[in-house]
Amino acid sequence: METKFLSETNLKFLLHDVHEISALTEYDAYRHQNRKMFDMVMGAALDLAKTKLYPILEEMDENIPELLDGSVRVHSAVRNLMKEYGEGGWIGASFPEQYGGEQLPLAVAMATRYIFAAANYSASTFPELTAGAAHLIISFGSEDMVAAYVPNMLSGKWQGTMALTEPEAGSSLADITASASPAGDGSYRIKGQKIFISGGDHDGVDNVVHLMLAKIDGAPAGVKGISLFVVPKKRIDPAGALVGNDIVVSQVFHKLGYRGNPITQLSIGENGDCHGFLLGEPHKGLAYMFQMMNEARLGVGMGAAAIASAAYYAALEYTRGRTQGRKIGQKNLADPQVPIIEHADVKRMLLFQRSVVEGSLSLLLQCSMYADLAHLQDGEDKTKHALLLDLLTPVAKSYPSEMGILTTSQAIQCLGGYGYCKDFPVEQYYRDVRIHPIHEGTTGIQGMDLLGRKVTMHGGESFNLFNKEVGSTIAHARRSPELAASADQLEASLIELQNVTRHKIEQAATSGPEVFLADATLYLEYFGIIVIAWQWLKQAIVAQSQLEKASRIRRSFLTGKMFTFRYFFAYELPKTKGLRSRLLDTDPLTVRMESSFFND
Amino acid sequence: METKFLSETNLKFLLHDVHEISALTEYDAYRHQNRKMFDMVMGAALDLAKTKLYPILEEMDENIPELLDGSVRVHSAVRNLMKEYGEGGWIGASFPEQYGGEQLPLAVAMATRYIFAAANYSASTFPELTAGAAHLIISFGSEDMVAAYVPNMLSGKWQGTMALTEPEAGSSLADITASASPAGDGSYRIKGQKIFISGGDHDGVDNVVHLMLAKIDGAPAGVKGISLFVVPKKRIDPAGALVGNDIVVSQVFHKLGYRGNPITQLSIGENGDCHGFLLGEPHKGLAYMFQMMNEARLGVGMGAAAIASAAYYAALEYTRGRTQGRKIGQKNLADPQVPIIEHADVKRMLLFQRSVVEGSLSLLLQCSMYADLAHLQDGEDKTKHALLLDLLTPVAKSYPSEMGILTTSQAIQCLGGYGYCKDFPVEQYYRDVRIHPIHEGTTGIQGMDLLGRKVTMHGGESFNLFNKEVGSTIAHARRSPELAASADQLEASLIELQNVTRHKIEQAATSGPEVFLADATLYLEYFGIIVIAWQWLKQAIVAQSQLEKASRIRRSFLTGKMFTFRYFFAYELPKTKGLRSRLLDTDPLTVRMESSFFND
Repeated sequence: METKFLSETNLKFLLHDVHEISALTEYDAYRHQNRKMFDMVMGAALDLAKTKLYPILEEMDENIPELLDGSVRVHSAVRNLMKEYGEGGWIGASFPEQYGGEQLPLAVAMATRYIFAAANYSASTFPELTAGAAHLIISFGSEDMVAAYVPNMLSGKWQGTMALTEPEAGSSLADITASASPAGDGSYRIKGQKIFISGGDHDGVDNVVHLMLAKIDGAPAGVKGISLFVVPKKRIDPAGALVGNDIVVSQVFHKLGYRGNPITQLSIGENGDCHGFLLGEPHKGLAYMFQMMNEARLGVGMGAAAIASAAYYAALEYTRGRTQGRKIGQKNLADPQVPIIEHADVKRMLLFQRSVVEGSLSLLLQCSMYADLAHLQDGEDKTKHALLLDLLTPVAKSYPSEMGILTTSQAIQCLGGYGYCKDFPVEQYYRDVRIHPIHEGTTGIQGMDLLGRKVTMHGGESFNLFNKEVGSTIAHARRSPELAASADQLEASLIELQNVTRHKIEQAATSGPEVFLADATLYLEYFGIIVIAWQWLKQAIVAQSQLEKASRIRRSFLTGKMFTFRYFFAYELPKTKGLRSRLLDTDPLTVRMESSFFND
Repeated sequence: METKFLSETNLKFLLHDVHEISALTEYDAYRHQNRKMFDMVMGAALDLAKTKLYPILEEMDENIPELLDGSVRVHSAVRNLMKEYGEGGWIGASFPEQYGGEQLPLAVAMATRYIFAAANYSASTFPELTAGAAHLIISFGSEDMVAAYVPNMLSGKWQGTMALTEPEAGSSLADITASASPAGDGSYRIKGQKIFISGGDHDGVDNVVHLMLAKIDGAPAGVKGISLFVVPKKRIDPAGALVGNDIVVSQVFHKLGYRGNPITQLSIGENGDCHGFLLGEPHKGLAYMFQMMNEARLGVGMGAAAIASAAYYAALEYTRGRTQGRKIGQKNLADPQVPIIEHADVKRMLLFQRSVVEGSLSLLLQCSMYADLAHLQDGEDKTKHALLLDLLTPVAKSYPSEMGILTTSQAIQCLGGYGYCKDFPVEQYYRDVRIHPIHEGTTGIQGMDLLGRKVTMHGGESFNLFNKEVGSTIAHARRSPELAASADQLEASLIELQNVTRHKIEQAATSGPEVFLADATLYLEYFGIIVIAWQWLKQAIVAQSQLEKASRIRRSFLTGKMFTFRYFFAYELPKTKGLRSRLLDTDPLTVRMESSFFND
């Protein structure tokens, strides 16, 4: 039997039935596309995932990247994969045709990333990083720059990276020290250290294009002095040849998971000969980078949800095949043992995983739709969707990432002792998913972004828009007798969220910013559960409406949807009670706790 | 600076001040012992842990056991370690002097296991398994058997194992198929497969003694037909020499963590020449095994708490040294970055870890004390402590194991990207701790044990005794103005627990056993939080009383205790609200969910 790492049925249910992406084809940019084309794209992605990515999942985990003679050797399949990604149009899936892209909606491109990441997360990141870097060059670079880099990147010949982090500047980008000195010819000489750079160097491509943050000599202190540069591993010399650009890989990190992609430390310009090319205007680097950040963060959430999906299907398959014990109350030992999926506790573990996977994916596609609409629309509509995207991005990044730890852990638990062994892939998923609460802004950073910035920005407009969106789903659900009680439950939770938010904002005024933000991570968790409940109610509305006319097989899927929806409202949504209790508690004990009190 | 993996101050605080183990010296068995001796024992354990165990933590993870020419090669240090464990009296720490043991209270022996496990979990399991097996032989074996095996085991020359699990019988021991045929000479010929046997074979010892479950020919079906055998890897032939006993290691599992100890699959008696020796009476094997199970399960909880401790101290050290960002509101970039331990969110992550580590350890020592008292006392007192131990064992096994996943994950988060890399030990702790919710009975099994058996047994007597114990702590705490509010909070939680328990038992009557036990895992989690809150209130009573007269350094430790206690009541105890909501919910959706609804 073919290994299943995601549900195509569910992906289509979400894209077409819940989020109605075909509505995007009413806009000029996508007028010549249609549902069938989107399905063909996903089918092709799934084919690539099954035939090329999944088969090397374990190999890429075991044959980890190594630094040899100054350059990084990765799994030998990576070169061919990059070629396939390039030739298949996957790197440029959402790029405009004028740049050689496929001009697909972001929602469709994100769905293909989900497919790739579910098959093999490490392998999926090479094109994703490249697309992110190319996107920046298109958005802010000159025509010459676009011409010099983008075609080679979208074709998979060159790797792209995001080179932000430094040894002493991770979460605090204000403190980066990489420097850029004007060379007099329009270019800059870059000098510094970058650390934890994914895909920072490897032998699966002919060149690596770093999108790098650095400070121009004399720049203002802090984030206002950060500029963004294109810094290639090999620069193009006047004769058009590629020559070394004074970047040395000083280390490849050996990691818990996500082991197929080389995470590198780079020494830049040690010989004073690293040429960097300013992207856009000086000192606007962080703002530029943040324009890409929403997409990168959705990508992280997508990666986490995808790994969680793969672990869930591995657990599902195992629990169907493994017999152990009998139904409670079934005492006759002459009866054969039953598949463990028949035990209620195992079903609970599977429903938990499914509820997180499908709830997360729904949110991520929702956010992708907002991004598409913000891109396509004008005026108020554009603003509305951009604000909703901004508000929900920290949730869409963090909820799948944090919950992915728990769901992959439950996948291990479904397999018992076997889950702990290398004989099954779940232990790898457990390791792979653990990166997601860390990279592209830790969960703590996302919490502060949500509570400290997004919820209050523009006078709370984003938060108000979110409440309207959820309110509209609640109103819709209330029309169905099967969903009315859940609609009430979500409405109560939403009102509580409003109260907690108001309480927190008042606390900011009375107790200052440190107390206000001390539990921002908990607020993010709290907010996230309600957001996912909303996505589940949206799904339930559609599933319920489809049930009556469904075929037998379809009915099984839809009934499972409804059970998973009920699971979420019965088991997950109540977790807000405990979080709310803490968020309304005014004892600022984590602020008052002194570091010396950890001594003994 | 020396690496810290546990707090000796805290261990002594719990043993002496909270649980008052010196009270045990009033009993004859321990009359010649005293506090100073207990401290010397722990000091010696810590010395061994620091000098011999911790230094090979990473090596044992990397140089994993391999099957070579039919036998298992482990890290070369294991042989010497077993010798040290034997000569130092560590294997027989709690064994009576008549068997060559040190005759220490179990609470002290458990404290030493905690020390060893915190330094190097894999290395700590070799003696622990050996002690468990030797204990069974002493409890149920003949004098000859004791003489033949126990001295070689307590001296570390021979390894002991628990050989229960089979390929088709893990959680369901009723279904084991290993067979034992009477050989006519008093011995049996054993035949079967055993899987996931920790320490099942290795070259650090001269022999391996398996305590093995098997069914004697013609035995009743199910658990009533299980007998317990001593089955050595090499048996003693009539001339007194060790000869092969027809046990073949067919596999060494490669695992996520806990990689220093070889987990093996054994083929037993393939040539019909495996001699096994019945322990005690026929068909009582499971009952015998379960007499050791409490201790083994406490050992698992101890191992999880110990790993969580090591991860916590690694995170604490890192957060003190790593500078990043500034205090919220501190805008001047000319100010240096602050150690990240100064950020409230990081302190929250550390308090979470500390609250779990110290709460778990307190419960485990509490249970060890109950075991000691049940062993030392007679009549009602004996019964009382045995019942409390029985009731709390599933919690003491599961709470540290499940929470250890989360705390070691938070330790990784404290280190950010570095936490994900092999350069720091936290990623190993994260892998090592994941075994604990699986071995010695999964969390699901513990939940059913607690709700389906322990809470209701003897007419609910254990549960009533537990309520009295907690009630007594609450009454004590209420006398202190600083603790009265927390005492009220715990009392409210305890009353809710009683109500939830009553509701569940009524549900058993009205809806049958499957619905009754469907959420047993959640009940265990719910129960566990309240149990740990109780342990924190006990600690707070002592810490509060000591604060006034404490030295400056001691005051810092005690103040940290009080903050951690407040953390638990403010952040962890409220989690019962969501769990309670589900446990009172009567929708049996995980029972009704059909396995086909997972199809699409």
